[in-house]
Amino acid sequence: MVVGAGVLTTPAADPLPKRLAVLAEDLRSLLAEFRPDAVAVERVFFQTNAHTAMSVGQASGLALAAAARAGCEVAQYTPNEVKQAVAGYGAATKDQVQRMVQRMLGFNEAPRPPDVADALALALCHLSLAPRLARIAAAGNQR
Amino acid sequence: MVVGAGVLTTPAADPLPKRLAVLAEDLRSLLAEFRPDAVAVERVFFQTNAHTAMSVGQASGLALAAAARAGCEVAQYTPNEVKQAVAGYGAATKDQVQRMVQRMLGFNEAPRPPDVADALALALCHLSLAPRLARIAAAGNQR
Repeated sequence: MVVGAGVLTTPAADPLPKRLAVLAEDLRSLLAEFRPDAVAVERVFFQTNAHTAMSVGQASGLALAAAARAGCEVAQYTPNEVKQAVAGYGAATKDQVQRMVQRMLGFNEAPRPPDVADALALALCHLSLAPRLARIAAAGNQR
Repeated sequence: MVVGAGVLTTPAADPLPKRLAVLAEDLRSLLAEFRPDAVAVERVFFQTNAHTAMSVGQASGLALAAAARAGCEVAQYTPNEVKQAVAGYGAATKDQVQRMVQRMLGFNEAPRPPDVADALALALCHLSLAPRLARIAAAGNQR
């Protein structure tokens, strides 16, 4: 989720349930403060590192639930959809995505850490795709 | 999570973020109503069905966060630990686990649906293992 451009972190030494509870609370606070119309969350896939993928899945579940509870439009995009939308190429490298994000947002340098660039890319992907998806849905409803 | 012996469900036709938000709210309500000392959550592993595993991961993240936020002791056990604790055999069948749960709790018939039996088995596993784990931790602290 992108609000401004920051990364939510929790102490790595804390037990997982505590970290997830803190993350849920931070998400709630951000949603209450910024009241976004839409929240874009990366669609999680299985990665080679099973432990990482499960943690990412648990965190994404919190983000999806918090956004829906706050009444936001919630969109999910795969990493490939994000790269395609931002860099015009589904297999773009992280570096290419970062430079496109920097250019599209007129930043003097690439956003850091890379997680921020990823989140900004996700937001740009939503801004690019959401109107198109809405038109497709509307066309479908008119049939 | 077991509170009494029920299964939380959400409409399958609803979008995922909405379902997760409803689940989070239901979990919060149950925790507020029953104020459990401890919550046991199955430790999720990757399954052959990637989609199911991710949904389970997202739901488990909500349970872990809600339980920690409510101040509960939160424990996680693998399916094998649960079977070992309840049926004395890590590779016990679902049917064997159900019958052991029924016997241990003095029910006239096996708890239904099977998800309820799984949740009760998880609770019984925690009741069986928690004192042992606490003693091990205490012994470690005394060194």
